[in-house]
Amino acid sequence: MEENWMEMEIEEIQEQALELLSQKRIAPLRELLTARNAVDIAQMLSEVSETELTLLFRILPKEFAAETFIEMDNDQQEFLISAFSDKELKDVLDEIYVDDAVDLIEEMPATVVKRILRHTNPEMRKDINQLLKYPKDSAGSMMTTEYVDLKKDMTVSECFARIRRIGVDKETIYTCYVTDRNRKLIGLVSVKQLLLSDGEQAIEDIMETNITYVGTLDDREDVARMFDRYDFLAIPVVDGESRLVGIVTVDDAIDVIQEENTEDIAKMAAVVPTEESYLKTSVWTHAKNRFFWLLFLMLSATVTGKIIQNYENAFVSIPILVAFVPMLMGTGGNCGSQSSTMIIRGLALEEIRFKDFFRVLFKEIGVALLVGVVLAIVNALRIFLMYHGNQEVLAQASLGQLSLVSGLSLIGIIVLAKSIGCILPMLAKKCKLDPALMAAPLLTTILDTCSVLIFFSIAMAIIC
Amino acid sequence: MEENWMEMEIEEIQEQALELLSQKRIAPLRELLTARNAVDIAQMLSEVSETELTLLFRILPKEFAAETFIEMDNDQQEFLISAFSDKELKDVLDEIYVDDAVDLIEEMPATVVKRILRHTNPEMRKDINQLLKYPKDSAGSMMTTEYVDLKKDMTVSECFARIRRIGVDKETIYTCYVTDRNRKLIGLVSVKQLLLSDGEQAIEDIMETNITYVGTLDDREDVARMFDRYDFLAIPVVDGESRLVGIVTVDDAIDVIQEENTEDIAKMAAVVPTEESYLKTSVWTHAKNRFFWLLFLMLSATVTGKIIQNYENAFVSIPILVAFVPMLMGTGGNCGSQSSTMIIRGLALEEIRFKDFFRVLFKEIGVALLVGVVLAIVNALRIFLMYHGNQEVLAQASLGQLSLVSGLSLIGIIVLAKSIGCILPMLAKKCKLDPALMAAPLLTTILDTCSVLIFFSIAMAIIC
Repeated sequence: MEENWMEMEIEEIQEQALELLSQKRIAPLRELLTARNAVDIAQMLSEVSETELTLLFRILPKEFAAETFIEMDNDQQEFLISAFSDKELKDVLDEIYVDDAVDLIEEMPATVVKRILRHTNPEMRKDINQLLKYPKDSAGSMMTTEYVDLKKDMTVSECFARIRRIGVDKETIYTCYVTDRNRKLIGLVSVKQLLLSDGEQAIEDIMETNITYVGTLDDREDVARMFDRYDFLAIPVVDGESRLVGIVTVDDAIDVIQEENTEDIAKMAAVVPTEESYLKTSVWTHAKNRFFWLLFLMLSATVTGKIIQNYENAFVSIPILVAFVPMLMGTGGNCGSQSSTMIIRGLALEEIRFKDFFRVLFKEIGVALLVGVVLAIVNALRIFLMYHGNQEVLAQASLGQLSLVSGLSLIGIIVLAKSIGCILPMLAKKCKLDPALMAAPLLTTILDTCSVLIFFSIAMAIIC
Repeated sequence: MEENWMEMEIEEIQEQALELLSQKRIAPLRELLTARNAVDIAQMLSEVSETELTLLFRILPKEFAAETFIEMDNDQQEFLISAFSDKELKDVLDEIYVDDAVDLIEEMPATVVKRILRHTNPEMRKDINQLLKYPKDSAGSMMTTEYVDLKKDMTVSECFARIRRIGVDKETIYTCYVTDRNRKLIGLVSVKQLLLSDGEQAIEDIMETNITYVGTLDDREDVARMFDRYDFLAIPVVDGESRLVGIVTVDDAIDVIQEENTEDIAKMAAVVPTEESYLKTSVWTHAKNRFFWLLFLMLSATVTGKIIQNYENAFVSIPILVAFVPMLMGTGGNCGSQSSTMIIRGLALEEIRFKDFFRVLFKEIGVALLVGVVLAIVNALRIFLMYHGNQEVLAQASLGQLSLVSGLSLIGIIVLAKSIGCILPMLAKKCKLDPALMAAPLLTTILDTCSVLIFFSIAMAIIC
């Protein structure tokens, strides 16, 4: 296996595919295209011309074409739909799962949506309309209605017969759901369990009745976390009356995990998150997503400037003080962002809860004191090494004074930084705000102000 | 469903379990404990006394006990092993999967490992020793050897017979692997495919031969990404001679995805990542993991201080200049970390590759110019509003001069910040360094120096 084989092969495939296409050698072309996963073909198609796209897409076998279609960019999907005949559109729609159809519809303009709905069969249309009603980040919006349902008085053999009959269109068959006559979920059974049981056994006797499930309105992040925690392949979704309405499968949970991580990371860097990938987002949108926070933080930073200005007398008479400001502000910001980042991540993974408030706070203060004292000592050493015998500096303050002032400031700033750094995200969580917003950028701005205040106060007291 | 039902129930279960235990009501106690997932029981047990732990653990049925054991903290596992009789230890070891046994062994002290290996059956011991040889972050280290293998001349019915016979001990049965007599992987078939096929059909005719697989030495992050990309439930692992040696299952892939995300986030905040959760890490280890970067960044920040010192004449005669420094340094840092964070995440998700270098750079410069000009205008407005009629400030420089100097500096700093912010992570990737290290903290320190240089140079040219 070559190191970058995935990427290289896709480029090779594209080259070969376009060559075979130009030679009109359809059979080997189809073989080439179907040798790879639909995701790869979608990626390969993302960089061909529109004419080539239409031609290549029409060569794909029906089911594979639908799988590839689902993996494409919205722009390409929209283009293809406009190029499709009614029959072609119907073929694709017949092959895709309801949850994928819903995702597609959510991204298409109204006229395209109308055309899509006109060509889906009535049953699927009903399901789509149902799923579209759930709020965007809910379990309902990420579930599919295509699962295998069984009745408790069926035998294992009857179950297999049912799976064989309806399983081909289901997103997963490996967990089957047992419902009563009111569609209430009463048990589940895995195909592994079915395979290991006797054909005459009743489902009732082998089904698992201690079921973990989620509600349609549960947050999709919580649903994804349950997959992480319990290693499920699928999880049933029930409505307010405990009726089974759908399932969420593990592949969708992984997508949500990655999206939520990306969202948290963006927020921590003071960027409004988007669903589009970096390269597909326009300069304009990028600028818009970053502008608000920059403006807010820039204006907040003028407060720090204002405070420095108040100490004008101090730094005009002892200009060496200003040289310490970047080091102190930098260290404060770094300490704060270390703490807040660790806490935000811990909260996201539910390793930290609000009831751990004081445990976390004391831990952070402990870390801050340890780190602060050592950094203060290193800093004192640096001051003696750098300014030893420097008359210009010595005329302003003694090296002992400078070491003491900056060392005490360092310790004070670090303790404050690590305390605020852990308190803010935990409070945000408690107040049902997103802890990820309490990250480095906001914190740094707050801490800059505090750092300057602490430093100049100590300096005034000791030197001036 | 209550909002925090998972957490609340675990605490309730604990309370009830301890009460039933004190009343010696074993049957209802066992029922209570097995009603929940093993993960929950492990969490519940994490906060009981050692005596209670031993008593409660012994009540669990064999298989469930093993599942719970695997989910426990290392400390508790070690304690339980020391409390186990040889028979109890063997019972647990017989029930756990090879990959879990390997994870356990990697965390236990040598004497415990010896005892574990003495009580595993010879076949498993061989597998464990094999898996222990793979490097820590490789596909080999995360795979399991418990899969279902088939031969190509078997019929579908024969396959089902084999799955029924050996499937109970396999980590997944839903994808079966077809190997030739040299153990070379030649195809795979899903149980869904088997169920939908006729019993007399040969595997050869229905198996998928275009197989995506990984090598034993492939990076586990790449393996996890393949699950994200291709929606697999399991992926086969082959050795240098294409022989099937194991499989990686999706639940382990999710764990790796989360661990890698946590690692990246920690690195981006200048914290050395650990595998332990926040609360379980000691103050000492936290301090150690944060100290190096803080020290390095603190010492680097003195360079910025040194540069400010060089402009002593400028800010002693025009002290208002110092008031702009926090705002400029802050904005530079924020802009840089916005860009670097987006790029680092894009690289991690493989949405951005090194070949996109110039596309990304031009995009960032475009964003920087847009944002920079608007912020410069807002900043000029602020200056006029704040200093209008302020004689002390006006004696130092005109408001037009101040707006021009700080506006030009803003634009220059933002363009620089966004350029360096995208260049550094991409270069790191190219040089096979971890892009996550090129995040906010390092960047801010570099940008602080540049910001001060740019600002004072422009100020000297225009005002002084």
